[in-house]
Amino acid sequence: MRIAELSRAAGVSIPTLKYYLREELLPTGVPTAPNQAEYSEEHVRRLRLIRTLAEIGGLRLRDIRSVLEAIDDPRLSIHELLGVAHHALGPREDAQDAAPANLEAGAQVDRFLERLGWRVSREAPARRTLARALVTLRHMGWEAGPEVFEPYARVAERLAAHEVATVGEEESRAAAVERVVLGTVVFEAALVALRRLAQEHHSEVRFSRGLSARKRGSRR
Amino acid sequence: MRIAELSRAAGVSIPTLKYYLREELLPTGVPTAPNQAEYSEEHVRRLRLIRTLAEIGGLRLRDIRSVLEAIDDPRLSIHELLGVAHHALGPREDAQDAAPANLEAGAQVDRFLERLGWRVSREAPARRTLARALVTLRHMGWEAGPEVFEPYARVAERLAAHEVATVGEEESRAAAVERVVLGTVVFEAALVALRRLAQEHHSEVRFSRGLSARKRGSRR
Repeated sequence: MRIAELSRAAGVSIPTLKYYLREELLPTGVPTAPNQAEYSEEHVRRLRLIRTLAEIGGLRLRDIRSVLEAIDDPRLSIHELLGVAHHALGPREDAQDAAPANLEAGAQVDRFLERLGWRVSREAPARRTLARALVTLRHMGWEAGPEVFEPYARVAERLAAHEVATVGEEESRAAAVERVVLGTVVFEAALVALRRLAQEHHSEVRFSRGLSARKRGSRR
Repeated sequence: MRIAELSRAAGVSIPTLKYYLREELLPTGVPTAPNQAEYSEEHVRRLRLIRTLAEIGGLRLRDIRSVLEAIDDPRLSIHELLGVAHHALGPREDAQDAAPANLEAGAQVDRFLERLGWRVSREAPARRTLARALVTLRHMGWEAGPEVFEPYARVAERLAAHEVATVGEEESRAAAVERVVLGTVVFEAALVALRRLAQEHHSEVRFSRGLSARKRGSRR
């Protein structure tokens, strides 16, 4: 297909597309004439992955690049690729993470994960997220230890076991990685959205008993 | 306490603090002398809530304002307050949501939520998140209907039931709302982080069987 068709098929504007080509995030097409190239379904798939990482994952260009390079690097195991993707998804380290309260919370999070028996890299950015959450709770006056996360950890573990099991051994390496990246980013958004909707539902059940049937109807 | 002390106690710089005062996000202190005012623990709590909404929730100033106003408005039920907070947390509507693929996915999401029996507002932004997730999956070539979200919905429902139940009837209205807002924002971050860590753990268990003990050790 020509570049205009590729743009339509992937839902990416031609200027953006040319930018990705220049930045070498997207392999060049097969030249068919001066200033003309032929693109394949492979380009469409790659572009959609870039869009997912940028628009759903909120990744910066440099992080998109590192995920794409990891996908294309046959020396990395699928496990290592997942690590690259998670690392790119952040959060990035900032000055706050070095504050004494954050370091203390971080150490508690580390022990908590050890107690759970989870084998996770020391550098996993998600450790920072947990430490920050703990620090925030404490700032807000909750006397919270990492054990407040335990119901969430149990739920997360069950989900992750199910998710990792669906990465088929028979899948191509690229397909498996794409699925893991997309699965992390997209289902994270879905999980958070569903939790909010479920909270609204339970809040309505618990706190709106006094509402008239009419008022209830108007909220649907 | 004086403004410098308030700044230290809440972890907010004095310029930011003055900005919040000017924007009336923070009530003024009790004047004690020209250019001097006395602040209370109430100010510290309010500032920490603003920080949580801004830094953890990623809310814009105008959305922070609407959450604070909802907290201070006694006409709103706790259920309605939760709605305001969720609405402020977004995502905001954009042009993409009006695309035919998104409208179709949105209608499917609506029917899915009806099948679940959840009572949620038609305008809940989380509906959009689910529709976007579905559209992204389809763009990436997954023939996905909303039923792919079912395991996540079950998990979310269990969590939300637990969470809403912990909002005590005996709590003050403000404390209950603060807890709900903070609980949504902070535990969302924690849940997502824990899911990533659990995925890493399960990926390590599944895909790293070939690694030597030494290499495994170096990842800890």
